[in-house]
Amino acid sequence: MAAPGAGASGEDALIARYFRPLATDPGAFNLLDDAAILKATGEDLVVTTDAVVEGVHFLSDDPPETIGRKALRVNLSDLASKGAIPAGFALTLALRSAEEAWLAPFACGLGEDAERFGCPLLGGDTVSTPGPLMISITAFGRVAAGRMMHRSGAKPGDRVVVTGTIGDAMLGLDILKGGAAAAAIADDPSARDMLIERYRLPQPRNVLAQAVRDHASAAMDVSDGLAGDLGKLCAASGVSAVVDMPSIPFSTPAASLLARAVVRSEALVSGGDDYELLCAIPENQFAAFASEAGSAGIAVASIGTIVGGTQAPKFLDAKGREISLSRRSYSHF
Amino acid sequence: MAAPGAGASGEDALIARYFRPLATDPGAFNLLDDAAILKATGEDLVVTTDAVVEGVHFLSDDPPETIGRKALRVNLSDLASKGAIPAGFALTLALRSAEEAWLAPFACGLGEDAERFGCPLLGGDTVSTPGPLMISITAFGRVAAGRMMHRSGAKPGDRVVVTGTIGDAMLGLDILKGGAAAAAIADDPSARDMLIERYRLPQPRNVLAQAVRDHASAAMDVSDGLAGDLGKLCAASGVSAVVDMPSIPFSTPAASLLARAVVRSEALVSGGDDYELLCAIPENQFAAFASEAGSAGIAVASIGTIVGGTQAPKFLDAKGREISLSRRSYSHF
Repeated sequence: MAAPGAGASGEDALIARYFRPLATDPGAFNLLDDAAILKATGEDLVVTTDAVVEGVHFLSDDPPETIGRKALRVNLSDLASKGAIPAGFALTLALRSAEEAWLAPFACGLGEDAERFGCPLLGGDTVSTPGPLMISITAFGRVAAGRMMHRSGAKPGDRVVVTGTIGDAMLGLDILKGGAAAAAIADDPSARDMLIERYRLPQPRNVLAQAVRDHASAAMDVSDGLAGDLGKLCAASGVSAVVDMPSIPFSTPAASLLARAVVRSEALVSGGDDYELLCAIPENQFAAFASEAGSAGIAVASIGTIVGGTQAPKFLDAKGREISLSRRSYSHF
Repeated sequence: MAAPGAGASGEDALIARYFRPLATDPGAFNLLDDAAILKATGEDLVVTTDAVVEGVHFLSDDPPETIGRKALRVNLSDLASKGAIPAGFALTLALRSAEEAWLAPFACGLGEDAERFGCPLLGGDTVSTPGPLMISITAFGRVAAGRMMHRSGAKPGDRVVVTGTIGDAMLGLDILKGGAAAAAIADDPSARDMLIERYRLPQPRNVLAQAVRDHASAAMDVSDGLAGDLGKLCAASGVSAVVDMPSIPFSTPAASLLARAVVRSEALVSGGDDYELLCAIPENQFAAFASEAGSAGIAVASIGTIVGGTQAPKFLDAKGREISLSRRSYSHF
């Protein structure tokens, strides 16, 4: 993503023109050098990488503006869960061609979010591909030395807490793909649009990074399905969990589709793309966490308890019976 | 690239098995968390990103072991040119399928180079794609605060210096693609193999990072063609350059193909994939730089002079006539 010099093609110039305005950090050197600098501040740097692929994480006809936002937001969500303050990102963009009609809104959405979340573009690489579009972002955050929040650290007795609502994004994708939810919700365009937006435009909870660091014993973001991701948090902590399915927060449109048996709760907790925070929070810290989240306007729900053991987390129905989960998370392969 | 928990597929486990041994830095947390940590050391962090794409930067039938090495080395080369000491890397891997026969040698080559160059895997993401394989790496290096070497900084009177030899990699690619060089070199398998290896396996000059920082006024690596890259360095420095084409170092096989008119020198200086250092070095620093490079066993050549002006660098033949360069560098679009 260095600037084009003598002999650069018009397309290289186009790419530079759209991305240079996003490189607002002095350490990006206006994208005119081979590398960027993250200045020493005495804090640790948190590094996270997430890629989004056309046809997998976004659809070919998704608006380029939301594709750019989503590519950054899925990484911002990781930083939030680690208690880190965004510091910048490196971008790899694999495109079939450099077209202004796509690049302009893509860079616009990406740039607006970079500014909103205080996470400027530092550099990157643009390559051509005959295959699907792919955007890979490596994002950086800062935390006080030794204070990154981990997946490990959950203790028996901690509450299992999630922000926002679960399962909306997988319903949004199902609608976009013409699945069962599409027909069932055709008569409620506002509910339809809300679910689609939840797929296209995650809401990373960076405003809660400090609360996570202050109150959680373990945290991660929910990206591949709540059930599978809780399993990963428990495995990293050497514990298990019991979740009360009726306590899991579903949005009104999701709850309506559940009530009409268009979708099952098992699918909602094993779908992907929620990008909500999943935390283990000691009982004596929960009120403070919930209060800080409330001040930020973010709903939190206590959905279960960390317990001893090494088995996969149990999900119980309203009568306390275990719900069998055949597939707990999204897998690429 | 976090480890698979409950519900993870066999392929996820396969990926974790091959890449976890590369995550030797304690800040990688054995790839068991959502993010890695680069500890605060009081040094600046240099960040660089380069992606390699099947059919562009490597060929489908290249050995997976060299693909892994090349993906890392093109980034190590950037760190070397910035005077930075490697600290680690994040990896994005887009695969059509997770096959042991490909993953094992890929991870092996990558891991050997990560160890050799002191640049451990910190984390990343693996995604599926129906398109070409793509490996994007964001690499980190450390430099004393404020001491990153820049492209800007070249001054009139500085020598233009390159390491190694130029143009071998583009000949290697031409051979692999069955171009003119393939037939011309068919009777000299050791020359053929040498040129192919120069394409598949760049030799990043990290051992010279300190010498670059101590003696160069500006530096970058040659990745898209010497002529175009020198143009970029000059543009960033607000200067121009005059290059003496007969002083450009060519390998014996390249010189032989040149002498037989199989390839023209213009093509060698505008081909890509050299991954040699290109430096502007003040006259009074050149002997020290050359001496340190000599001690490291790396050839350096003084090929021209930085001059005032803003025009593209001039390349002169043995009689001092300007050589017209129709294409100065590789462009993706």
